[in-house]
Amino acid sequence: MAPDCVFCKICDGDLPSMRVYEDDRTLAIMDINPLTSGHCLIIAKAHAPTIWDADPLDLQAAITAAQKVAVALKTAVKPDGLNMLQANGAAAFQSVPHYHLHLIPRWNDDGKGFDWPVVAGNRGQIQAVGERLREAIG
Amino acid sequence: MAPDCVFCKICDGDLPSMRVYEDDRTLAIMDINPLTSGHCLIIAKAHAPTIWDADPLDLQAAITAAQKVAVALKTAVKPDGLNMLQANGAAAFQSVPHYHLHLIPRWNDDGKGFDWPVVAGNRGQIQAVGERLREAIG
Repeated sequence: MAPDCVFCKICDGDLPSMRVYEDDRTLAIMDINPLTSGHCLIIAKAHAPTIWDADPLDLQAAITAAQKVAVALKTAVKPDGLNMLQANGAAAFQSVPHYHLHLIPRWNDDGKGFDWPVVAGNRGQIQAVGERLREAIG
Repeated sequence: MAPDCVFCKICDGDLPSMRVYEDDRTLAIMDINPLTSGHCLIIAKAHAPTIWDADPLDLQAAITAAQKVAVALKTAVKPDGLNMLQANGAAAFQSVPHYHLHLIPRWNDDGKGFDWPVVAGNRGQIQAVGERLREAIG
């Protein structure tokens, strides 16, 4: 547990939340500032700020829990679609630096975004970045 | 493999792609319409349209691969942050109905979005939806 981490406090029960699912490694709660109805968060119980720091077993548990909650959201709010979003760092609009997935139910023409104009990239640049990435993966 | 699925064809090598990582269950490729430099896709090799249909083992493999590629992106493009986004259904702006994660490197003030105004929800409504969700999870 990290001191002063809101999500650690929620996981430990020191702050209230609306819990919808829990297992050994994850807790799912309703987002209190929902983008759409049913917006919820899958939180890894172990404190790690980002995907760069998290234990792979916690990532696996989080996405398994996300699937369970996604299935239940189909019944509970009957969305037309669903986005899963995860943010790492302030530049990516991460507001709580403790690893979590957003599950955001979507409806046709709800106007909530996550689309972007499809613009073909420069293939030479993409190739060059891809080669650096391959090297970095090793 | 699903007939006429672009990502199945990419996984099978019937369509070209810039591959950056591969294991038994996943393939990571550069997005040819990148939102930012280094934008890549983690594709489950087995065909399943959405998180609702995918084998949990494929989801776990995909997020494990995403972490590997995210670590490499830090070296390759040195972003300030990173978003992971996954879309299910046209309402969520899914363009290829074959399960995949977007990894999108972010830079401070890149203006590419994924933020939304924080507006407190109606607690009674959130509670009611949360209770429906709990019941649906069972």
